[in-house]
Amino acid sequence: MAERKPVILVLGAGAGIGGHVAQRFAAGGYHAVLCRRSDEAGLDRLVSEIQDSGGEATGMLLNAVEEGAIEDLVFRVERDIGPIEVALFNLGAQIGNRALGDTPLKTFELGWRMATFGLFRLAQALFQLMEARGSGTLLVTSATAAVRGNAGQHSHAAAMGGRRMLCQTLNAEFAPKGIHVAHILIDGPVEAPDTLGKLLGPERFAELKAEKSDGKDELILPGELAESYWHIAHQHRSAWSHEVDIRPFKNVPWWNN
Amino acid sequence: MAERKPVILVLGAGAGIGGHVAQRFAAGGYHAVLCRRSDEAGLDRLVSEIQDSGGEATGMLLNAVEEGAIEDLVFRVERDIGPIEVALFNLGAQIGNRALGDTPLKTFELGWRMATFGLFRLAQALFQLMEARGSGTLLVTSATAAVRGNAGQHSHAAAMGGRRMLCQTLNAEFAPKGIHVAHILIDGPVEAPDTLGKLLGPERFAELKAEKSDGKDELILPGELAESYWHIAHQHRSAWSHEVDIRPFKNVPWWNN
Amino acid sequence: MAERKPVILVLGAGAGIGGHVAQRFAAGGYHAVLCRRSDEAGLDRLVSEIQDSGGEATGMLLNAVEEGAIEDLVFRVERDIGPIEVALFNLGAQIGNRALGDTPLKTFELGWRMATFGLFRLAQALFQLMEARGSGTLLVTSATAAVRGNAGQHSHAAAMGGRRMLCQTLNAEFAPKGIHVAHILIDGPVEAPDTLGKLLGPERFAELKAEKSDGKDELILPGELAESYWHIAHQHRSAWSHEVDIRPFKNVPWWNN
Amino acid sequence: MAERKPVILVLGAGAGIGGHVAQRFAAGGYHAVLCRRSDEAGLDRLVSEIQDSGGEATGMLLNAVEEGAIEDLVFRVERDIGPIEVALFNLGAQIGNRALGDTPLKTFELGWRMATFGLFRLAQALFQLMEARGSGTLLVTSATAAVRGNAGQHSHAAAMGGRRMLCQTLNAEFAPKGIHVAHILIDGPVEAPDTLGKLLGPERFAELKAEKSDGKDELILPGELAESYWHIAHQHRSAWSHEVDIRPFKNVPWWNN
Repeated sequence: MAERKPVILVLGAGAGIGGHVAQRFAAGGYHAVLCRRSDEAGLDRLVSEIQDSGGEATGMLLNAVEEGAIEDLVFRVERDIGPIEVALFNLGAQIGNRALGDTPLKTFELGWRMATFGLFRLAQALFQLMEARGSGTLLVTSATAAVRGNAGQHSHAAAMGGRRMLCQTLNAEFAPKGIHVAHILIDGPVEAPDTLGKLLGPERFAELKAEKSDGKDELILPGELAESYWHIAHQHRSAWSHEVDIRPFKNVPWWNN
Repeated sequence: MAERKPVILVLGAGAGIGGHVAQRFAAGGYHAVLCRRSDEAGLDRLVSEIQDSGGEATGMLLNAVEEGAIEDLVFRVERDIGPIEVALFNLGAQIGNRALGDTPLKTFELGWRMATFGLFRLAQALFQLMEARGSGTLLVTSATAAVRGNAGQHSHAAAMGGRRMLCQTLNAEFAPKGIHVAHILIDGPVEAPDTLGKLLGPERFAELKAEKSDGKDELILPGELAESYWHIAHQHRSAWSHEVDIRPFKNVPWWNN
Repeated sequence: MAERKPVILVLGAGAGIGGHVAQRFAAGGYHAVLCRRSDEAGLDRLVSEIQDSGGEATGMLLNAVEEGAIEDLVFRVERDIGPIEVALFNLGAQIGNRALGDTPLKTFELGWRMATFGLFRLAQALFQLMEARGSGTLLVTSATAAVRGNAGQHSHAAAMGGRRMLCQTLNAEFAPKGIHVAHILIDGPVEAPDTLGKLLGPERFAELKAEKSDGKDELILPGELAESYWHIAHQHRSAWSHEVDIRPFKNVPWWNN
Repeated sequence: MAERKPVILVLGAGAGIGGHVAQRFAAGGYHAVLCRRSDEAGLDRLVSEIQDSGGEATGMLLNAVEEGAIEDLVFRVERDIGPIEVALFNLGAQIGNRALGDTPLKTFELGWRMATFGLFRLAQALFQLMEARGSGTLLVTSATAAVRGNAGQHSHAAAMGGRRMLCQTLNAEFAPKGIHVAHILIDGPVEAPDTLGKLLGPERFAELKAEKSDGKDELILPGELAESYWHIAHQHRSAWSHEVDIRPFKNVPWWNN
């Protein structure tokens, strides 16, 4: 019966990490709830692909920064679909490099509202339920901006750095209660049309794919990456990871130069 | 002549770090501008002490989270007192330990607005002026919550972690333009009546002082700490520090246990 | 045919992590070569268990600090058993807490010779072969002493800290050539009779197991941990992890207190 | 009287950091003991310069990796000159970039013997004396190789990474006993003829100086750097720093790229 499947809630379900993780968990027996801000057609396509492969999925448009939106989402999913066993917080705040003078207050605030405050709100809505059930998993997609602040990354790095500390405080309070919080540091470009693709534009993205992907594996393939998300979410509670870095084999790690 | 003195602007000038740094810089020939949110009597006392020792100081009450307040402050100080050569961002967001369920959204947001957004706004208002002058210094008082998130520190750690990354992005953009950004990680209790004293209450604070201070040096003495702030602000530009940790000799560093 | 199986070489194959990883890889189709310094009976038992479950395994006694021993081992395994696809460097140097005055020069040197120099020698012997084959994996079991130095850990922390940096330099040179180096930070006690068991003695180890394991999962179960070693060794090269931390859900991470 | 001056012992006293720190402390009232492996003429020149400026200095040639050499040095300085209040461990192990195949076992071992084991031996010889006196300072010059391992740095990074952890274990045991251990991370090129000069050769070093120094301050000026060593060594024990990073204002910090 459909209602017996565990639920994974994906915030930020584009055609990259979010969509592939949803797909991987659906293939593994979860009902995947995919949420994104816009592009209903793209969302429907992701949901259909999962369903066509025999999986269960639901799509929802959601403006995460809207007051009450995340809280309401959690409430409705739990009521209408089932207990959320795994949540993936996959909302980013990368806006490219902007000098301080070109970073409006509004932009800086929006970065925080999306990437830091959004996670805090999700945890507040969700962790009391998970705590009552004695288990649950929160996967957070992160970036190197969470551990070092490069030039031009004022908004992004401040949001991600705050979020990384929040993941640690959440872990400190809730891991002993059976909730697994994992901060997954993506340290390289992902072959993702909805994020990197939009940042670069279709032409440069196609060039980049031709140069570095297509058998060369120099961009992170989100379908392969999703295997690590799956693994982390299913580690035995005697052996949990909190922070994991991931990059393509050819990529220089962030700490090298 | 008074107007020839360099200016240090202190945001968060209580009777602890802020007040003592102001005092140290005034003794070293700066005009110290001391800002705090409340307690005008306490502020006046700090200003008078500096003036009585032959230094120059101005006190201002300021609600840093109010829209435009920091920006306006920078404008007025530069116009009425003189170019700000050194700014000390000494606003904290420590509210004690609170479980996730006891941390309202408002509290979490206020922590960010004070400790992260406040610094961003100060930098936006000030760095264009410093850049035009080819020099300047921004000292940021920080805490271990900027590098690790303990249980109960959701609001504080998220704000400080974001702020640390912001210090790095500011440094990356502005150090090459001659602006020195230093993130000073205070990893121990400060003998400060306006912060630790208020957190503990007068009795426990007096006990703590009797037990650990008064010649034992197991609390950070803000007057001694101010010497390191002074040193960092006056390092030669061929040899700048960006991150410095400070604790009492008896204290276990945050990374040990 | 037996000779077609890929080989995993395990240095430090006791009844804890080393033995369980060998077992996991044997179950997954590898020929496991188990090496340890002493206790031939224990080694034979591990090998037999793997063989009895239908896996392939070979046991070898090895004094890793002896000149030429690691180099010769690699040569013989490659010649007699087959190409080493995965190596697990599982030699530790934990000797319990010793004050500086109680840490002889010999002890400090032995720690380095085992835990740091041993890895360097393994990499020198092995990586030229892996490089010629265009692929290979080196898993390194590590400890929190690699990222922070606690009191009493002079020998252990110096050896592990050097080793962590060596893992980074090896990764920097060899990841782009297809060799996956992973530094796995075990941040909690492992239910391992040959290491923790010997450190504590049989009685306290039995007590600890009764208190924290046996369904409570508060000690790392090496069989469960081995799943993460297996996963890391089989990540797609577009999405490799270099550093992964692991601890039981009830354990306070090293950065908290 | 000469014998009343406090003593600073400098291991690695070339014409860069070591010599300038010796000079700075001599100017501040210390008797500076300068030790280096070779170039007696250069050593004599440093000693004479200090004496000509009215300071006190003694020069000694020392092969630090020789058995007993450091221990004997400490014994003789304490007996013949006076109690060592400050020691500067300024021995490096940078040998330029070498691929794994071009890094002989001997080289790797020598790096450790110099940069890690040397510090351990110094601490063993010195800290019991400092502990008995209730105070003392150990300054350790470090490099970014202590916190991240770049390609080609196998020997250097392993030695420095081990050393950094050793500084932490020493600090953990001895800071509460009044001994200040500081790990000073030099994250940029130093205008030092005996180290950078020799690495580059005289011509490229002269070019580099013309391009980046001589008023441009893009190389660390060791005389200016010495001010921070002096400051750290004289911090009040209620406000000690353990790790301090230093670089020229134009330099990209190690964590950025």
